[in-house]
Amino acid sequence: MKKNHLKTWGLCIFALLGTATAAAQGVPSMHNIGGQQYPLVNPDNTVTFRVKAPGAKSVQIVLDKPYEMKKDTAGLWLYTSTPQVPGFHYYSVQVGGLQFADPATYTYFGMSRMASAFEIPEAKADGDYYKPQKGVAQGALRSRRFYSEVCGEYRRMYVYTPPGYEQDKAKRYPVLYLQHGGGEDERGWPNQGNMAYIMDNLIAAGKVQPMIVVMNCGYAVFAGQPIPEQQPNARSSMDAFVAFTDMMVKDVIPLVDKTYRTLSDREHRAMAGLSWGGKQTLDTTLGHPELFSAVGCFSAALPMREGTDINTLYNGIFKDAEAFNKQFKLFWLGIGSEEGPGAAMMNKALTEKGIRSMLYTSPGTAHEWLTWRRCLKEFAPLLFK
Amino acid sequence: MKKNHLKTWGLCIFALLGTATAAAQGVPSMHNIGGQQYPLVNPDNTVTFRVKAPGAKSVQIVLDKPYEMKKDTAGLWLYTSTPQVPGFHYYSVQVGGLQFADPATYTYFGMSRMASAFEIPEAKADGDYYKPQKGVAQGALRSRRFYSEVCGEYRRMYVYTPPGYEQDKAKRYPVLYLQHGGGEDERGWPNQGNMAYIMDNLIAAGKVQPMIVVMNCGYAVFAGQPIPEQQPNARSSMDAFVAFTDMMVKDVIPLVDKTYRTLSDREHRAMAGLSWGGKQTLDTTLGHPELFSAVGCFSAALPMREGTDINTLYNGIFKDAEAFNKQFKLFWLGIGSEEGPGAAMMNKALTEKGIRSMLYTSPGTAHEWLTWRRCLKEFAPLLFK
Repeated sequence: MKKNHLKTWGLCIFALLGTATAAAQGVPSMHNIGGQQYPLVNPDNTVTFRVKAPGAKSVQIVLDKPYEMKKDTAGLWLYTSTPQVPGFHYYSVQVGGLQFADPATYTYFGMSRMASAFEIPEAKADGDYYKPQKGVAQGALRSRRFYSEVCGEYRRMYVYTPPGYEQDKAKRYPVLYLQHGGGEDERGWPNQGNMAYIMDNLIAAGKVQPMIVVMNCGYAVFAGQPIPEQQPNARSSMDAFVAFTDMMVKDVIPLVDKTYRTLSDREHRAMAGLSWGGKQTLDTTLGHPELFSAVGCFSAALPMREGTDINTLYNGIFKDAEAFNKQFKLFWLGIGSEEGPGAAMMNKALTEKGIRSMLYTSPGTAHEWLTWRRCLKEFAPLLFK
Repeated sequence: MKKNHLKTWGLCIFALLGTATAAAQGVPSMHNIGGQQYPLVNPDNTVTFRVKAPGAKSVQIVLDKPYEMKKDTAGLWLYTSTPQVPGFHYYSVQVGGLQFADPATYTYFGMSRMASAFEIPEAKADGDYYKPQKGVAQGALRSRRFYSEVCGEYRRMYVYTPPGYEQDKAKRYPVLYLQHGGGEDERGWPNQGNMAYIMDNLIAAGKVQPMIVVMNCGYAVFAGQPIPEQQPNARSSMDAFVAFTDMMVKDVIPLVDKTYRTLSDREHRAMAGLSWGGKQTLDTTLGHPELFSAVGCFSAALPMREGTDINTLYNGIFKDAEAFNKQFKLFWLGIGSEEGPGAAMMNKALTEKGIRSMLYTSPGTAHEWLTWRRCLKEFAPLLFK
């Protein structure tokens, strides 16, 4: 809902500040609430934050760690970061030891709470694939609530149906189940990931087969169990995610196949997820090869360490490479170049074993949404061929 | 995505606190992030808030005004409010003069930013109409982006299509355009208002004709104009809303009629809005009687003061009661019993003039979402009869 701030900045700066300042070279981040000038993305990809907390003793901006803001003569707190890499970044404001979302931005469920964000645009047209483009037909992105018998509660899923879905009533479509990471929820792919723009653009370009994409919340506990506080660390995550595969298999997939015009055989069902959602993807797909034929792991939490024997993983499903290759048409690992070696290690081990595994490395990105937008762009065209 | 906290509370309290406390009688608010115990809604409808800010000198909870929290021996800040009326309530945490969303809750765009919220459940089953009910068929709630030529930007609308829309491809539907209030956006009705639950339940009960509901962001400025900072006060609101009617008439209505199976004559097009969105509804519908035949104003910002001559309003459209009654099949005013007298004054003036105006008063509610959920429930059944 924001204007092209590049265009309007010239007017705003005079209206709001009266005179040009150093900040005048920057552009409000695309996640700012309309009319909010800060965070300001500067031409060198540093970011200037501004917070109005006249009564605070000190204020910090939390990026990888807390950074002290400085109070200016007007009582506003300011901080300019070092240059940030392109992509979507969560951040927090901290006062008195409490971390919270900057009221200047829209919020996104990440870090196990509603978090503020800024985004460094990519150079040139590299990011066009995750932005709306004129003349490109749109799928329908729907939020759907459902009662999960497994979890004993109403839940929400997002369902993307491709352009044409509502015109040709005879046509049926393959389905990709797509999961967020730890500390996020079912809104991650629609909001942070821009998945609808990515799919629309790929479909319009003829690169991807039209498909239905279903996104669920990965946090799931069995009916009657208490919900642990959502924390992205491993131990509590295990508790908070424990019913996920059951919910997918018993509630979600039957509901989707009943409600939407799907191709409901395993050849036309894939699953992918990022980070903890990648682990959940492996658990779900390799635990249910009767349901899935394609697997995508984006910066996944993988069970690979130095010396891990892949023959021991997932009830030995990798032991028989020939059988695995017959069952799974696509086994795909994506990772940011600035991340750890797990994906490359797993790909190497699988390849040496004779398993058709694919590895994609996103250049210059870390454990962040730009990696995962790119992963979806690279992975989706390989599906259902 | 939250469990039935009533059921799980017993387990949680022992897991988290070890022993029962006074707080054990309360129930986590339904807008809390999973596993968050506070805000806690107590049996007497007081609300206990808790914030972890060990380094703060003082912390306030902002309801109608800031209230001081007290630090307990563990360094947590606590505050218990006076009893709150049933319904959805925005609130803020304040530290060092900065007001922001409590990280313990989901956030909703209100107060011109992402705001935290708590909700006091209604007594008995009074609130069932805005909750999901088992066995009730669901419409599809879609988010749709579009390029507005009037505003020169991509925007988002939400479109609710009723159950059956995707099954019977021949059927066409009337359309209700439904607007949020000042400081909110197009997410207000889906998220705070629970409009999809309300419509699903009313349609299932046979009380409402199946219809399409379209929700847009009321903030709209002309292409090339700077966006004023979003403020719910009148002056900046005027600037920030200036292109709304043009956008509706030139961009939104044609797009909706082209994209969805609408009945596109004025007899099958209605508009309603709350608060500032009620003012926008009057501006748009009374400014374009060739497009609309029904009008709903929920706690609207009305142009009525003591002594206002209704004959002077809206280019004199109320002057000729007979003509007005022919043009508009429904002119409906809703208001909370705890709000001001504007709606009753306008209804009285219109009725005395011979105009078929209807007034609904929501008992015990003020300028808040419970009033507006009730308004939708009362208004929608009267449409398109």
